[in-house]
Amino acid sequence: MSVNIEDFEKIERAASPELDAILGYPFPVLDHGFLRVVDYMGTEASIVQAARVSYGKGTKTVNEDVGLLRYLIAHHHNTPLEQPVLRVHVKLPIFVARQWIRHRTGAFNEYSGRYSVMDSDFYVPKPEHLSAQSKSNKQGRGDVLEGDEAARVLHLLQQDASTAYEHYEEMLNVDKEGNPLNPDKQGLARELARMNLPVSFYTQWYWKVDLHNLLNFLRLRQDHHAQYEIRAYADVLANIVQQWVPNVWQAHLDYRINSITLSPQEQQANAKLRGLSWLDDAGIVANVKSNFGMSSRAAAEFLVKFRKLNGD
Amino acid sequence: MSVNIEDFEKIERAASPELDAILGYPFPVLDHGFLRVVDYMGTEASIVQAARVSYGKGTKTVNEDVGLLRYLIAHHHNTPLEQPVLRVHVKLPIFVARQWIRHRTGAFNEYSGRYSVMDSDFYVPKPEHLSAQSKSNKQGRGDVLEGDEAARVLHLLQQDASTAYEHYEEMLNVDKEGNPLNPDKQGLARELARMNLPVSFYTQWYWKVDLHNLLNFLRLRQDHHAQYEIRAYADVLANIVQQWVPNVWQAHLDYRINSITLSPQEQQANAKLRGLSWLDDAGIVANVKSNFGMSSRAAAEFLVKFRKLNGD
Amino acid sequence: MSVNIEDFEKIERAASPELDAILGYPFPVLDHGFLRVVDYMGTEASIVQAARVSYGKGTKTVNEDVGLLRYLIAHHHNTPLEQPVLRVHVKLPIFVARQWIRHRTGAFNEYSGRYSVMDSDFYVPKPEHLSAQSKSNKQGRGDVLEGDEAARVLHLLQQDASTAYEHYEEMLNVDKEGNPLNPDKQGLARELARMNLPVSFYTQWYWKVDLHNLLNFLRLRQDHHAQYEIRAYADVLANIVQQWVPNVWQAHLDYRINSITLSPQEQQANAKLRGLSWLDDAGIVANVKSNFGMSSRAAAEFLVKFRKLNGD
Amino acid sequence: MSVNIEDFEKIERAASPELDAILGYPFPVLDHGFLRVVDYMGTEASIVQAARVSYGKGTKTVNEDVGLLRYLIAHHHNTPLEQPVLRVHVKLPIFVARQWIRHRTGAFNEYSGRYSVMDSDFYVPKPEHLSAQSKSNKQGRGDVLEGDEAARVLHLLQQDASTAYEHYEEMLNVDKEGNPLNPDKQGLARELARMNLPVSFYTQWYWKVDLHNLLNFLRLRQDHHAQYEIRAYADVLANIVQQWVPNVWQAHLDYRINSITLSPQEQQANAKLRGLSWLDDAGIVANVKSNFGMSSRAAAEFLVKFRKLNGD
Repeated sequence: MSVNIEDFEKIERAASPELDAILGYPFPVLDHGFLRVVDYMGTEASIVQAARVSYGKGTKTVNEDVGLLRYLIAHHHNTPLEQPVLRVHVKLPIFVARQWIRHRTGAFNEYSGRYSVMDSDFYVPKPEHLSAQSKSNKQGRGDVLEGDEAARVLHLLQQDASTAYEHYEEMLNVDKEGNPLNPDKQGLARELARMNLPVSFYTQWYWKVDLHNLLNFLRLRQDHHAQYEIRAYADVLANIVQQWVPNVWQAHLDYRINSITLSPQEQQANAKLRGLSWLDDAGIVANVKSNFGMSSRAAAEFLVKFRKLNGD
Repeated sequence: MSVNIEDFEKIERAASPELDAILGYPFPVLDHGFLRVVDYMGTEASIVQAARVSYGKGTKTVNEDVGLLRYLIAHHHNTPLEQPVLRVHVKLPIFVARQWIRHRTGAFNEYSGRYSVMDSDFYVPKPEHLSAQSKSNKQGRGDVLEGDEAARVLHLLQQDASTAYEHYEEMLNVDKEGNPLNPDKQGLARELARMNLPVSFYTQWYWKVDLHNLLNFLRLRQDHHAQYEIRAYADVLANIVQQWVPNVWQAHLDYRINSITLSPQEQQANAKLRGLSWLDDAGIVANVKSNFGMSSRAAAEFLVKFRKLNGD
Repeated sequence: MSVNIEDFEKIERAASPELDAILGYPFPVLDHGFLRVVDYMGTEASIVQAARVSYGKGTKTVNEDVGLLRYLIAHHHNTPLEQPVLRVHVKLPIFVARQWIRHRTGAFNEYSGRYSVMDSDFYVPKPEHLSAQSKSNKQGRGDVLEGDEAARVLHLLQQDASTAYEHYEEMLNVDKEGNPLNPDKQGLARELARMNLPVSFYTQWYWKVDLHNLLNFLRLRQDHHAQYEIRAYADVLANIVQQWVPNVWQAHLDYRINSITLSPQEQQANAKLRGLSWLDDAGIVANVKSNFGMSSRAAAEFLVKFRKLNGD
Repeated sequence: MSVNIEDFEKIERAASPELDAILGYPFPVLDHGFLRVVDYMGTEASIVQAARVSYGKGTKTVNEDVGLLRYLIAHHHNTPLEQPVLRVHVKLPIFVARQWIRHRTGAFNEYSGRYSVMDSDFYVPKPEHLSAQSKSNKQGRGDVLEGDEAARVLHLLQQDASTAYEHYEEMLNVDKEGNPLNPDKQGLARELARMNLPVSFYTQWYWKVDLHNLLNFLRLRQDHHAQYEIRAYADVLANIVQQWVPNVWQAHLDYRINSITLSPQEQQANAKLRGLSWLDDAGIVANVKSNFGMSSRAAAEFLVKFRKLNGD
């Protein structure tokens, strides 16, 4: 029953050929951004190894690694998923960085506008991403803007950012070579001058995160409620994760992304409404609002689940 | 030796009259900001209680609470300091918020520019805080700007921020009452329009933090290397902490802020140079650079410590 | 649109009459343990306040607090749930403490067997909790032991613990008053002598945890897969949480505990099998194993969900 | 000033030949324990890279990597030190594991006594580590036990642990091959039977930790106040860290371990007492107790620093 020193010998570092093949390569994101993997630790085998220590040496009945990975994810046994680590270098707009850093479980090292002159790049949406405020969703986008309104918006975003950067350089009083633009001026401190730049400007950072927290990030930031611009980064990361740990990724999709969760009220509504096959969507919504006390939003959410579960 | 159920009776919640007296009151910071305490848990007695559980009931020799508090801080016994909690509501410029959130150990709930229209307030430094870039310190400020250059900088900061907000409102196409400015326009999504606003604009959040992590925040953000604008908030917080846990605060000052730390090289340099009393500052710096291999920066730091330790 | 200093005035600390009524009172757990609330911060109103800052002042349409609390929990918007904090004092067996501390997000201050003599109390299960190893579940309990086997087990647990403590005291060479038992002996260091005590002995600690992490703790530790002894503590905590934040607790039950989650495979199996109403349990299990490639464990889990969803 | 996609190309994973050479090798610790590195991420170059992103591309004046590493550590700029990660597999006594897991910032996966039968190995100190309780230090060790007392203690530790394991196996009713010892018995659940084992028994786990938190662990657990048994593990880890990141390790020794920190009171006492060269140790202690209000413990700590700083 003992685990002894004699049981172990020299090993090689766990390696992922898929990540090794893309290490350092910058995937483009948005108009001037990128994301590149600069280091990583571990593979799916590292997760299995960490999980199996719980079962001890004697337990060989859980012999299917894929099954174990899926079980861990289906049942929220998250600690083995904290073993693998990813380290990326990202260039991203400040307003995206402000959403990203809400995920406090990673380590961040960001470019400093106090030490160095800020990059002149700023983000301007493509015309197809220039959307109106959604009428129904307080934090969402509606139809794409068109014609004069779209042109005017693009003009303002471009112009204000360009003017802000010109004035930033004027206040700094430094040219591209780092010499004074005007020898009679002192130049404003960098930490103050950067106040003039809009949150559309790009910054960059190194981010280190373990796989468990990375999957949480992706669940929230690939969701259709997330802002398009951070989704663009999350989608690139998701492709990388899929290459790195494909079975974990599939289980993440099956148990967290594409699964359906029904509360007890929804279970009851589902049981009752399955028998009322003549009801159309509006009928179902009206029914669960009056019979199960659901709000309009809750009823709409139920309808989607109901159709998925009982679709012909 | 047993700790039994009979040992305990009903208690009252630990209260701080000093914090109760200011609860909800907004202390002004910068030109439009504020910081107000909205809730708290614990007092110095809570720290002592948590620390004493380690010693058990029988140990009564550590009977001086202040001594215990000072001992905990002097010797990095930090976990009892994690027991008290402070909760504040802060209005602060975005560039200050970006520095603040690097402290990942608190809980943040921030105003969202996706849900709601951003506040029109932005920060403009007072003339006495409008400093040039430091010549010696890559991240610091030098002399205050004067005359035309100061006036020009103030004009640019004001003008660009005002223009950015006017265009923000135009792009949103919403007036103060929430009605369309122009009925023929759709209005850009809030999450996109806010991209136009500089990081000088104010946001607001609730921040919950335990005392241990709050002291770490204050050590870094009250330091003279921190940017003036975040120091302004840290100084207000420090006054609150001093009211709340005065003995902890004094120990923090004695052991972390006003203490001197000497590396082995500095100990040797100190021992040798004490005998060379005719040396002026330049002589000391030259000596430790050549005899102890210190860099210019290290030598300058040593000089300050040496004078403090051996000053007449 | 501005949030200004004039908008605020002096407030009182948020208080929970339900918690105030039990503050300090030790709820008994197991044979010698207890759990008592010693402090807390916040109420459901604190969560709503933190959540509403995201929406800004202008947004009044989400005016139903209970609806907001339920929405936060249903959609994993966890940060407002990090605002309330609970602080408890617990006496618990070491093997329970070892499971508990795996939840790394709280702050712990534990009694130290290095400083002080360990408590003489140890845990012995009641006869009805003295279970055999489960045949089907590697980490579970089966039938209750009976007759001679039960008596023998109780005898061994009692005897070995008593002997271990007697020898602990002998090695320490200290009597109840702290005097040497034998003046010719030195007495072994406390930090070594405590090595002799089994993990059934009681320790005690202060635990500070925020509501979000407390709910995670309860989801895992009230689960029927958790060991009975830690469930006994979790159940006491759950009653306290229900008193403190009743709507949060109800939402936790509805969306996390009593909800059903179906993966895409299970959605398909559910759709297909609903039409095959003549199938008994064994038939359903056989069907999903052969047609949907489920393992025996997965099939058994599906069966429970299927019957809940489609029960008559 | 821009950081652009064209600036980057394919890279190799950062590797440490020193760690690669020992990967998987179990270093023996105590009588049955070991510690082996099973994976790692990053090197000193990774720290420099993360730190330099703050300064941007243009800043080349900080060109000395060693100087930068020493600066980061001397000035508590810790986030770049969070980038490197170490993953170890450890076999250790339960009472050591209970001290270790207080460091909540790593990820742990531990062998489970619920799933599997516990290892039969337990820790017995070597005679030279069998110390009496310190008279002066509540949590420390004094002289080594001798003669009959030592023999008796060793006998008790051995005997009680052996008996506990025999009874553990009897209660489990399982032999080495996993068959019932007695076919008429059911066998107690593993999760209950393990309650009988003392905390001297060995467990094992995988631990993943970043370099910053590993250095904090070593500062506390290599300290002479730490219990000998966890120091034995910390010393092995320290050797590994020294091989891995030698300049970081040297800076850790210089600025955290071998440095001297003086509070303002100690600075004043030092300035005054330097002139009183005739004072012996007792005289210095008496002086600072009466003139600077130091406690006996504080005076003793001051004396050590004073002699180091002013030793001949």
